[in-house]
Amino acid sequence: MEHIFSYHHLREFTREVFIHMGCSLEHAALASEVLVSADLRGIDSHGIARLSGYVRLWEAKRINPRPNIRIIHETPSTAVVDGDAGLGLVVAPYAMEIAMQKAAAVGTGWVSVKNSNHFGIAGYHAMKALEQDMIGMAMTNASPLVAPTFSTERMLGTNPIAVAIPAKEQPAFVADFATTTAANGKLEILQRKNEEAPYGWIQDKNGNPSKNPHELKDGGALLPLGGDREHGSHKGYCLGAIVDIFSAVLSGANYGPWAPPFVSFLPLSPNPVGEGLGHFFGAMRVDAFRPADEFKSNMDTWISRFRNAEAIPGKKVLIPGDPEREMHQERLENGIPVIAPVVKDMKEVAAKFNLNF
Amino acid sequence: MEHIFSYHHLREFTREVFIHMGCSLEHAALASEVLVSADLRGIDSHGIARLSGYVRLWEAKRINPRPNIRIIHETPSTAVVDGDAGLGLVVAPYAMEIAMQKAAAVGTGWVSVKNSNHFGIAGYHAMKALEQDMIGMAMTNASPLVAPTFSTERMLGTNPIAVAIPAKEQPAFVADFATTTAANGKLEILQRKNEEAPYGWIQDKNGNPSKNPHELKDGGALLPLGGDREHGSHKGYCLGAIVDIFSAVLSGANYGPWAPPFVSFLPLSPNPVGEGLGHFFGAMRVDAFRPADEFKSNMDTWISRFRNAEAIPGKKVLIPGDPEREMHQERLENGIPVIAPVVKDMKEVAAKFNLNF
Repeated sequence: MEHIFSYHHLREFTREVFIHMGCSLEHAALASEVLVSADLRGIDSHGIARLSGYVRLWEAKRINPRPNIRIIHETPSTAVVDGDAGLGLVVAPYAMEIAMQKAAAVGTGWVSVKNSNHFGIAGYHAMKALEQDMIGMAMTNASPLVAPTFSTERMLGTNPIAVAIPAKEQPAFVADFATTTAANGKLEILQRKNEEAPYGWIQDKNGNPSKNPHELKDGGALLPLGGDREHGSHKGYCLGAIVDIFSAVLSGANYGPWAPPFVSFLPLSPNPVGEGLGHFFGAMRVDAFRPADEFKSNMDTWISRFRNAEAIPGKKVLIPGDPEREMHQERLENGIPVIAPVVKDMKEVAAKFNLNF
Repeated sequence: MEHIFSYHHLREFTREVFIHMGCSLEHAALASEVLVSADLRGIDSHGIARLSGYVRLWEAKRINPRPNIRIIHETPSTAVVDGDAGLGLVVAPYAMEIAMQKAAAVGTGWVSVKNSNHFGIAGYHAMKALEQDMIGMAMTNASPLVAPTFSTERMLGTNPIAVAIPAKEQPAFVADFATTTAANGKLEILQRKNEEAPYGWIQDKNGNPSKNPHELKDGGALLPLGGDREHGSHKGYCLGAIVDIFSAVLSGANYGPWAPPFVSFLPLSPNPVGEGLGHFFGAMRVDAFRPADEFKSNMDTWISRFRNAEAIPGKKVLIPGDPEREMHQERLENGIPVIAPVVKDMKEVAAKFNLNF
């Protein structure tokens, strides 16, 4: 059972909710655009499905609707931003904009952020750079759900990495992926359907391979990309660790197992090692390396060569970003399906703020 | 059957070989240090085992022993370096040094390199940054051996990524990994032993899973980290693609399936899309984000917290770089074992240049 909403309906509803949380009109408009971009791109776990979670974090006073977001340290190519406990959905665009300004001035810009919250999909922020012929990067740490290789403890988040690279005639290359075998959102789908997960996605509390999608409730963990040692899980662990360190140790946010949980019913660490959640953004001007037109023509060649690679019968080789771009078009035209439990959450939020639904 | 050599013996032999190839004394000393650092760290596939391959590339006139390595474009935080077909073992340190100089000046430095050759282990170059309290990064594209998700064609190299992050009392965090399930060197070990590979490492020429370590000779391919789509191979493909684009499209080197093969018996592409092989280096001054001492203390906490994470009985959670650092100590003290086929190659090289062995 699902309900189909238009993009504009979802975005307007979200905007109203953020306004009722006390956000400025400008912040509410931006935050709703960022949040619902996840639904448009088909990353349902990071869009409207999170809205009630943000409201609960705000009720728990873990989100400041009127943050004083500011640079606390900088050099010509770097900055650290304090998000003042604001919505990651507005802190991240602020920080990405600084990265791009620095890239415009000195070739590249790199911004580490502390004291923030969940920022939606990493891809949205990385793609901002495309408008200015820049390569964009975005990453974030997140609630600890992932066990490093050989660990039975959850030490890292699903810590996504997004990289957006402009092309000329071809659509841009947009990679946006969790550094785990499977994103938590995929596990949530199996939980709802009560279906088994493949081996390599999760382990139980003792570190044994498990197919039970509910394992995380019993002390189990998601696994780093690779799944197990023999298949390179130490590499997925490295990636998740690098994202954690760039996002949270460079900025002074909470890192590793201290990263604050997204769900408001879990307590914050009594001994935080930093402030809030951390992100990391990068922008590299293409013409800081070679003429943008030359680079983008080469990217066209790269993309068409890979798209036309010989493939397994019935399959084709995709370019990172292809599925999400097609979904964006499809959902913009035909609407966004929202599953019943999320519609129920939306109704509760609407009732709380006395909004039309 | 293997022979044990001292580090100094291997390094001196390698230095002599590079001198006889016509390298300057300075370049020969540097190249031998970089090459044999792989053996010290236990990455046997990238060290002395490659020496005869370099000699054959030089004989095929694909390596220029007296390169005019130079910056061809730059901004305050970026540069593109033309390696003039030199040994990657000397081109890469030159480029990494520029990245560090730029980081010293404006906070970060990013250098893309074209017209180079195999550069040894990525970790060596990334670790250079540690000496100056910088985070170091190094990556390179390589001979196409890897099939993207759903492809039956080999389109990418094993394209490694190295990231080195300084700590205070703790040893540095040093990640250095191929973006495939297993590095080619691991496959070579199975080939020599005639042992099967686990599923998820390789596919046959039709894209079917295979355990045959000799599959690459019959048109098979290595698989991106993740192994198959269900286990996230599209993420490993993204990583390999990003390394390829940063290293080769940003610089103007050959990218994707056009990357030149390391082995001299395979022909170069008749229609190259760039010059030589490409690399990418980055350096970020830690104090461009926050005081270095604060950062490094936090890294100590990060490292000790992860090292002491609850583990599967009989196992412990490692920090990236731990195994290589221990190997380095062990081999510096007790010597470096070299397998018989490599010793045979060394003897042939010695005979060619009339060197003592």
